[in-house]
Amino acid sequence: MSIHPLDAALALEPLGEGRFGGRTHPDWANMVGPFGGITAAQLLQACLLHPQRQGEPLALTVNYAGAIAEGGFEIEAAPARTTRTTQHWTLTLRQGGEVCSTGSAVFAIRRPTWSAPELAMPAVPPADQVPAESKRPPVEWPRRYEFRFVEGGWPDYRHAQELPDSRTLLWVRDQPPRPLDAPALAAIADVFYPRVFRRRQRFTPAGTVSITTYFHADAAALAAQGTRPLLAVATGRRFTLGFFDQSAELWSDDGHLLASSHQVVYFKE
Amino acid sequence: MSIHPLDAALALEPLGEGRFGGRTHPDWANMVGPFGGITAAQLLQACLLHPQRQGEPLALTVNYAGAIAEGGFEIEAAPARTTRTTQHWTLTLRQGGEVCSTGSAVFAIRRPTWSAPELAMPAVPPADQVPAESKRPPVEWPRRYEFRFVEGGWPDYRHAQELPDSRTLLWVRDQPPRPLDAPALAAIADVFYPRVFRRRQRFTPAGTVSITTYFHADAAALAAQGTRPLLAVATGRRFTLGFFDQSAELWSDDGHLLASSHQVVYFKE
Repeated sequence: MSIHPLDAALALEPLGEGRFGGRTHPDWANMVGPFGGITAAQLLQACLLHPQRQGEPLALTVNYAGAIAEGGFEIEAAPARTTRTTQHWTLTLRQGGEVCSTGSAVFAIRRPTWSAPELAMPAVPPADQVPAESKRPPVEWPRRYEFRFVEGGWPDYRHAQELPDSRTLLWVRDQPPRPLDAPALAAIADVFYPRVFRRRQRFTPAGTVSITTYFHADAAALAAQGTRPLLAVATGRRFTLGFFDQSAELWSDDGHLLASSHQVVYFKE
Repeated sequence: MSIHPLDAALALEPLGEGRFGGRTHPDWANMVGPFGGITAAQLLQACLLHPQRQGEPLALTVNYAGAIAEGGFEIEAAPARTTRTTQHWTLTLRQGGEVCSTGSAVFAIRRPTWSAPELAMPAVPPADQVPAESKRPPVEWPRRYEFRFVEGGWPDYRHAQELPDSRTLLWVRDQPPRPLDAPALAAIADVFYPRVFRRRQRFTPAGTVSITTYFHADAAALAAQGTRPLLAVATGRRFTLGFFDQSAELWSDDGHLLASSHQVVYFKE
């Protein structure tokens, strides 16, 4: 049995003192360097593999400082402060001594409290009533996901016409299906192509500069989602002077918000 | 003429090698330690004062790892990677060698591109038609702001009754008024009391664990806002097992989104 492409990417080699060796995988290639979501998942994985880790992922910020070249890299995960409830990590990904990504993670111990939803899951047909998209953009990583677009599928660059909004709403899961866990969710938080492509129905060079994901579910709740598709929605806020931000929500199929994720994105022209 | 309380807090002493000395100010005291917004502003200020700084603030993440005690602290701002367009910073605030806050900032050089709003500013009466709130909660930092609540003012703990949503909408500015700049905006991004207080109309111990703010305006656009109130709106997403996240937008009074900000918050009970 072959290893799942996500697990292949997450197989980091412990080098001691919070350092982990990894390598880029052709399965996760993007236009330039790897898919941002896989880098985020790998940085989170370094915390998860660290012997001092306490609690579960609560927040993850990854800054894409420079392109990651094909080949090996080293992640350093340093626990900066551990309290009774939270653990704060400082994250760095380097290639040949140069910093390619920085970031931080917060792990937390969840305890029973008053709980309530506020944002409501968008009303959509169930995943099995939405056809899986067969087209993929001409990069590799989208082949690692099953996309069932309810709204805002791949931009149609043949009929470039600016749209009034950039919303995308879809059912999504790993392809081949894989039980959900925090690194998988961290990667899925970045499956939305840059919202500027959708608004403009036009491709320009663009890339995530920084992404922050908040986790609202513990390992048990993620495991309960299993391999079923997540409902995922993303929209932009303001596009100006080469940058914009977009926010996303990822929902379990029974209507619980599993994660919210925000990113600021660079674009050209 | 006395120095403005915000400028007093931002007066960091360069200690060389990206290290800056600061101290807590009683004007900015919160329940435990200083107001999170002032810590965020101070970390951003360290980048702004750094001799290698390039460009202007684009993204700022601050993780509140441990309480800051009254007295001196040291901020370390390390430029991790500088490219043609962006500069990535790793930030640490320490007291007596112990890490109290970690974070990262991205600075960027903005260039003319296609630009468009997407999110629309909420329709509200102008600031001068909304009365300034005279009440303040029993901590010091809210006295540094003028609050004109359109919706969702201070919780009324005398009539604790759970509300269906946690939205707050207000006009806000520094008190005394001060021309807007990036550190002021970084602080204002955190003026929303924890959304769980609003939902439950009940006070429980709570505190920001991590905040991320994206800046959509350059120094000139912020200066153009001057001392006029900003429109600020915040809502929660999901409250569960001791944590929730809330998102905020800060608008110029002529309807431009100046910043969006997200945070994950700890709460008890």
